[in-house]
Amino acid sequence: MSRRADGRADDELRDVKITRGFTTHPAGSVLVEFGQTRVLCTASVTEGVPPWRRDSGLGWLTAEYAMLPAATHTRSGRESVKGKVGGRTQEISRLIGRSLRACIDLAALGENTIALDCDVLQADGGTRTAAITGAYVALADAVTYLAAAGKLADPQPISCMIAAVSVGVVDGRVRLDLPYEEDSRAEVDMNVVATDTGTLVEIQGTGEGATFPRSTLDKMLDSAFAGAEQLFAIQKAALELPYPGALPEPAAKK
Amino acid sequence: MSRRADGRADDELRDVKITRGFTTHPAGSVLVEFGQTRVLCTASVTEGVPPWRRDSGLGWLTAEYAMLPAATHTRSGRESVKGKVGGRTQEISRLIGRSLRACIDLAALGENTIALDCDVLQADGGTRTAAITGAYVALADAVTYLAAAGKLADPQPISCMIAAVSVGVVDGRVRLDLPYEEDSRAEVDMNVVATDTGTLVEIQGTGEGATFPRSTLDKMLDSAFAGAEQLFAIQKAALELPYPGALPEPAAKK
Amino acid sequence: MSRRADGRADDELRDVKITRGFTTHPAGSVLVEFGQTRVLCTASVTEGVPPWRRDSGLGWLTAEYAMLPAATHTRSGRESVKGKVGGRTQEISRLIGRSLRACIDLAALGENTIALDCDVLQADGGTRTAAITGAYVALADAVTYLAAAGKLADPQPISCMIAAVSVGVVDGRVRLDLPYEEDSRAEVDMNVVATDTGTLVEIQGTGEGATFPRSTLDKMLDSAFAGAEQLFAIQKAALELPYPGALPEPAAKK
Amino acid sequence: MSRRADGRADDELRDVKITRGFTTHPAGSVLVEFGQTRVLCTASVTEGVPPWRRDSGLGWLTAEYAMLPAATHTRSGRESVKGKVGGRTQEISRLIGRSLRACIDLAALGENTIALDCDVLQADGGTRTAAITGAYVALADAVTYLAAAGKLADPQPISCMIAAVSVGVVDGRVRLDLPYEEDSRAEVDMNVVATDTGTLVEIQGTGEGATFPRSTLDKMLDSAFAGAEQLFAIQKAALELPYPGALPEPAAKK
Amino acid sequence: MSRRADGRADDELRDVKITRGFTTHPAGSVLVEFGQTRVLCTASVTEGVPPWRRDSGLGWLTAEYAMLPAATHTRSGRESVKGKVGGRTQEISRLIGRSLRACIDLAALGENTIALDCDVLQADGGTRTAAITGAYVALADAVTYLAAAGKLADPQPISCMIAAVSVGVVDGRVRLDLPYEEDSRAEVDMNVVATDTGTLVEIQGTGEGATFPRSTLDKMLDSAFAGAEQLFAIQKAALELPYPGALPEPAAKK
Amino acid sequence: MSRRADGRADDELRDVKITRGFTTHPAGSVLVEFGQTRVLCTASVTEGVPPWRRDSGLGWLTAEYAMLPAATHTRSGRESVKGKVGGRTQEISRLIGRSLRACIDLAALGENTIALDCDVLQADGGTRTAAITGAYVALADAVTYLAAAGKLADPQPISCMIAAVSVGVVDGRVRLDLPYEEDSRAEVDMNVVATDTGTLVEIQGTGEGATFPRSTLDKMLDSAFAGAEQLFAIQKAALELPYPGALPEPAAKK
Repeated sequence: MSRRADGRADDELRDVKITRGFTTHPAGSVLVEFGQTRVLCTASVTEGVPPWRRDSGLGWLTAEYAMLPAATHTRSGRESVKGKVGGRTQEISRLIGRSLRACIDLAALGENTIALDCDVLQADGGTRTAAITGAYVALADAVTYLAAAGKLADPQPISCMIAAVSVGVVDGRVRLDLPYEEDSRAEVDMNVVATDTGTLVEIQGTGEGATFPRSTLDKMLDSAFAGAEQLFAIQKAALELPYPGALPEPAAKK
Repeated sequence: MSRRADGRADDELRDVKITRGFTTHPAGSVLVEFGQTRVLCTASVTEGVPPWRRDSGLGWLTAEYAMLPAATHTRSGRESVKGKVGGRTQEISRLIGRSLRACIDLAALGENTIALDCDVLQADGGTRTAAITGAYVALADAVTYLAAAGKLADPQPISCMIAAVSVGVVDGRVRLDLPYEEDSRAEVDMNVVATDTGTLVEIQGTGEGATFPRSTLDKMLDSAFAGAEQLFAIQKAALELPYPGALPEPAAKK
Repeated sequence: MSRRADGRADDELRDVKITRGFTTHPAGSVLVEFGQTRVLCTASVTEGVPPWRRDSGLGWLTAEYAMLPAATHTRSGRESVKGKVGGRTQEISRLIGRSLRACIDLAALGENTIALDCDVLQADGGTRTAAITGAYVALADAVTYLAAAGKLADPQPISCMIAAVSVGVVDGRVRLDLPYEEDSRAEVDMNVVATDTGTLVEIQGTGEGATFPRSTLDKMLDSAFAGAEQLFAIQKAALELPYPGALPEPAAKK
Repeated sequence: MSRRADGRADDELRDVKITRGFTTHPAGSVLVEFGQTRVLCTASVTEGVPPWRRDSGLGWLTAEYAMLPAATHTRSGRESVKGKVGGRTQEISRLIGRSLRACIDLAALGENTIALDCDVLQADGGTRTAAITGAYVALADAVTYLAAAGKLADPQPISCMIAAVSVGVVDGRVRLDLPYEEDSRAEVDMNVVATDTGTLVEIQGTGEGATFPRSTLDKMLDSAFAGAEQLFAIQKAALELPYPGALPEPAAKK
Repeated sequence: MSRRADGRADDELRDVKITRGFTTHPAGSVLVEFGQTRVLCTASVTEGVPPWRRDSGLGWLTAEYAMLPAATHTRSGRESVKGKVGGRTQEISRLIGRSLRACIDLAALGENTIALDCDVLQADGGTRTAAITGAYVALADAVTYLAAAGKLADPQPISCMIAAVSVGVVDGRVRLDLPYEEDSRAEVDMNVVATDTGTLVEIQGTGEGATFPRSTLDKMLDSAFAGAEQLFAIQKAALELPYPGALPEPAAKK
Repeated sequence: MSRRADGRADDELRDVKITRGFTTHPAGSVLVEFGQTRVLCTASVTEGVPPWRRDSGLGWLTAEYAMLPAATHTRSGRESVKGKVGGRTQEISRLIGRSLRACIDLAALGENTIALDCDVLQADGGTRTAAITGAYVALADAVTYLAAAGKLADPQPISCMIAAVSVGVVDGRVRLDLPYEEDSRAEVDMNVVATDTGTLVEIQGTGEGATFPRSTLDKMLDSAFAGAEQLFAIQKAALELPYPGALPEPAAKK
């Protein structure tokens, strides 16, 4: 079987590393690496919820994705300087928020908001799937933080694990976890967000200048589910280490 | 079998109507109706291409989706007045553009741009899938217009038909073409863009506050493919009528 | 006497049609056509008033005018995408709001807002005057709706009818209701907003690259008043039909 | 006859003063005062024209109106800080540009642009009419400057004088040149832009919470024309003084 | 010793004039002139403070700096039209606010805001230092106004005088109060904000395409302190005149 | 002598670390740490210069500073989402650009642009001085890269080293390199940008709610110069290591 440019088999993930406590201010701060793709995922807890959700008793989870200008091969303009957030950025931010809201019971948070920030330090394909995979771990740390502070109505508000992986058709072959070199010339590109209970949260597949038969969709899904299983194992291993920082004391009862 | 609120069977489309020549200025102008959802899809031809594509010899196809403020049950603010286009709007605009670019050979257009505008006059669920289905017909009319004007390098630049349909899980049942009443409480929501050659252009499925097993994905795809077949028949019937307007004379050779 | 390009006499209106209930969500929804000019005028009722008017006991009426990108002969850019509303758009929006506020007793509305949206589907000159003429009918329907819901302090808050018409000097002749072909080369262009009691609400006349004597102003006013009379008759005929939709039950007393 | 609050007769202008050379950088710089209303009107000449006018051989004249934040009785927010120009500001800017373009032969300017800036230093009603009246004088100075520099195709490109004045109905009486105290409670408000040849450039009349009969329109026009005559005399007197600054040497022939 | 282009000695200020009561609406309104540089500095009092300061019992002082488009040698674009405030403008606005907050006890103002607007009518170098020097006088007048209205907790909330002056190295010589002709080619440029008690509020020195030794910094400071002394004398003389307008009556006790 | 909260002496820097090659796409990529403050400084080379500089034969150097939302103790809003860059951000971006332009001969770069991006990953005071210190090293790497590519007119376009440090008055004592805990309550705050030849590039000192005598300024400068010496040694040590990545081959002569 022909090997990929980086030597991987078609169904092989890149080296995936998860570093918790990468920065110290947010409740969760995770550097996630899928090969050369590196994303800093933080989970910040703030009191209160957006206006449209006030007095509901429910919490909220929001996400923002962005790229540093020099993260890409060629420097790209800074969106704050342009004065508006591009369509791709908004689309990915919305995907990350939806994906992570699928695993958490917002009622258990009380009227608090968790803001997930996924900032791409270096991009080499698959930044959105890396971001979701890392954001899950940052979210888990933020939940641990809230639990220690005695702010959760339910001690375990996370119902399942979430991970995401890309899969596509390159050179006529179904391949897992595409780096930029493959992504930029893929015939089909798909992102799959899955749970560790074997279900799907989101599936987005696109033919890039080509269309694809249903049989290809099936093969891509097989590969994505297998890749997700490995990501859950890596997330679990990372989360077995103690919380990387000082946990708060429970707030005194009022 | 329990019927849906509007009396349809689970695998039944709403009444779909396609009216060509709804307005007269653009080269293609189509009013598409999926039940109470009504979208005006126009295809305007302009000379030239965006700066990043100049001197490539290739044409371009772009799309913009928008809703009139009073299209929804409760009036929503006008995006031009807010000063920015929302994330949902951009996401759908990008989807429409990608979907229609899948069926056209941009090289055949020469350095001309086709702008698809999909403006929702009345929204009752499935506006993006109605928009794609109607935009295909508007695009076909614009191509007829360009052909008559003698501006095409290839007389038949469209390689296949494109239609889109929504499918979801509501009340635990897989249902086709969701109106707002079902869409707003669906457990799973999926949009499928397909070709009349039986392949997929795009698939986007999302668990809404729930996740879904792969077997559900398969059932939804079965239903979506069957729905798309009916949409291709309706598009074909609409396009059998003559071009609704005056076709241009071929430009004289310079 | 020389006829105009479209065969009309100088003092003749184009065919004017008013279709109520064009869409179903807003309380008033009117498609108004002045020849090839077609404007969708909706009147949406929302509870509450802008912050600066709160606790005044008075209602508010606001208007927004916009053009679909493909409404004009050559596609124009979408203002939401540009990120700002152009001067012409704002000027017309302000004119429509002022004109319709002249006929309604805002105190009778209570602290409710009526939002008039005038979206031009197809432009062929006179879009602002068509918009005002159609918006009056949409407003009348919204008032009927509010009356049925038992929300009006005064059962008949509308004090007079409002209609608008353009008049100008083209080819040295005073002409009524200019289509684009005349408007674009008019020497003088005037818009007159009038009431069915014979008074003026607004008059805006401009010399386009030329100035005009007071005697011309007088002739233009004669023509405009005569045209307005015909518009009032068309509005009345349209409003004699029953309300196009289901009227609400009166809200129960609290 | 009852006098007005400031002691004037109904048909009397406020004290009008025109100071040329108020600042030194622009080719024309005029401080115009209508009583307490003070507007700085400058005319700056720049080479070139906007992109849509290039290679036409024609010049262009544009205008921008703005108010200093502290010009009004209560400080108003700065539009640059808000990030957008309000509808009223744009409407007046467009009016000023249209009005002054009526008196100048743009072909005589060559491909040069004259930018008129009308910045209100102190507002007491009638800022737009004062601005137009002052801008005419600044424009005349800019034309003198261009003539001295040898840049005009036609030595006298100005075909007539332009002045503007407000007139309204206050306390049931037709009154000329309304200060803020009258303007804010006027029943009818009208702005008239006239030429010294007795013709109209622009007329904008609005009923403010009331409508008005045609006979009132006629009386207001009588008053406005009489007022404009006086303004032309004041402009002429101001322009009889020598150019307030150093005129350029004619550019050497290339 | 070689003289400067305008005949001044190296350590000599330009003619500095301060005119109070230049406009009449704001509580303080000062035209300050440093040679050809002319800045209108107003101080407007409004009730209330920004949201983040509410219920603190403290007042607030804010400042905004701007240039009229025709203030510079070549007309510059209007920031409101561009839709955003440039970096230089914001930087100077922040500097003015910080500088004037150094002399006032915000607690004495109660929850009122003083807005300083510094609008440059004509620019010839040193606009920011002229603005600060003039804003101090406008602020002093606003405080007199608030005292007369009985709104101050402390009758004398100003603890010292504030003035600012530029100094730089031009043609190898340390020079005070640079006009545009020197500023645009200075090797070092420094702005010093000082108090009449001999202390510094702010110092900002920049090498322009060159760096400078500490000994130069010392010489520039000597010159700046000497210049500030003269400015304090001019401010004092201006403030010895009576308040230019009508002072309010004390508000009646509620 | 009383120690600071973190145990340092008044004139002691925090631990400063400089890591080159932190990311791989830009020509220079440096992680600089001043204690808990961590800034990623990248230098990206792009062909061409801004429009106003074209055909000058000169290069350009620009800088942008930004903070990740979760970099601060409390999450701050993302400027791209707000749609505008704040005054503080712009002010610091401008400072970094000016500071680094002081050490480089832009003529030697040819018409190429170096973009410095300084993104704060974690903030604990002194982010702007850390950014300048790190940006110098990133710039040096970018110059090495350009030299290897044969793109420099002058093989050594950097004339001196640049470093920056903060110094302030806290608890009445002059202290070097303030962390957030000191910075937020400092009486005087100063940033000094210096060269390794003993000269100043920029000095910005501000009394925060207090003013300061010249003698304090002198003591702060002594401390800052001593601190800068140590920073130059750390930069030199970092730059003695080989270039962290693959250098390009010289471009072939055309």
